[in-house]
Amino acid sequence: MKKTLGNHFLLEFHGCPYSTLANVSYVEEHLLKAAEVSNAHIVRTLFHQFQPYGVSGIVVITESHLSIHTWPEYNYAAIDLFFCSDDVFPERAIEYLKNAFNPEDVEIKQIRRGEIIVQGVGTLHEF
Amino acid sequence: MKKTLGNHFLLEFHGCPYSTLANVSYVEEHLLKAAEVSNAHIVRTLFHQFQPYGVSGIVVITESHLSIHTWPEYNYAAIDLFFCSDDVFPERAIEYLKNAFNPEDVEIKQIRRGEIIVQGVGTLHEF
Repeated sequence: MKKTLGNHFLLEFHGCPYSTLANVSYVEEHLLKAAEVSNAHIVRTLFHQFQPYGVSGIVVITESHLSIHTWPEYNYAAIDLFFCSDDVFPERAIEYLKNAFNPEDVEIKQIRRGEIIVQGVGTLHEF
Repeated sequence: MKKTLGNHFLLEFHGCPYSTLANVSYVEEHLLKAAEVSNAHIVRTLFHQFQPYGVSGIVVITESHLSIHTWPEYNYAAIDLFFCSDDVFPERAIEYLKNAFNPEDVEIKQIRRGEIIVQGVGTLHEF
């Protein structure tokens, strides 16, 4: 039986207002909230303010991760939503993020991660 | 003038020995080393051991991030290398990771992130 472990959404946010991308606390608040509205379970987080500008943020969730890298000087953010559960709602996170970062143009790629063949429930291959 | 800010490599490692994926310290050691051999500059790191099994790890680098999520029970790891610099060597990191996790099968997708039109060096759009 085939099984896909995760779905990875790569979001290209172009034309975001500078103010939404420049400040680590704004970015952190909204990436965390996006994790919450998607029904993901936050494990640990890491946010970093670059100088002179730019923010990187990671939210590790039980279901994999959310990440963001911002280029305020280009009004651009690269956002990843990597979810390995059917109990999360990526579309809710995406809508929330659109409202928070207000991009003029959005491109989304969805990529399946971990397409595996399951030989039986709980089968463990310790080779 | 068109410019691409980053290259994102999505690595599917199938058939990895259980022992390479189960332990957070092994995974951490080798993801950090992969960052180093690629010439990336490590900013901050975050590694987490899940129970009963599985590891998530993130290395935030000046040039974006490396991430890994392991499913030892399926002998599978999803690895991302997101580099936004021409001064890093993704192929070195990939070769290093292949040796560290010894997958039977590898699939790699390369996706361009942040394809923007540059109107001038240092132009800042504060709208």
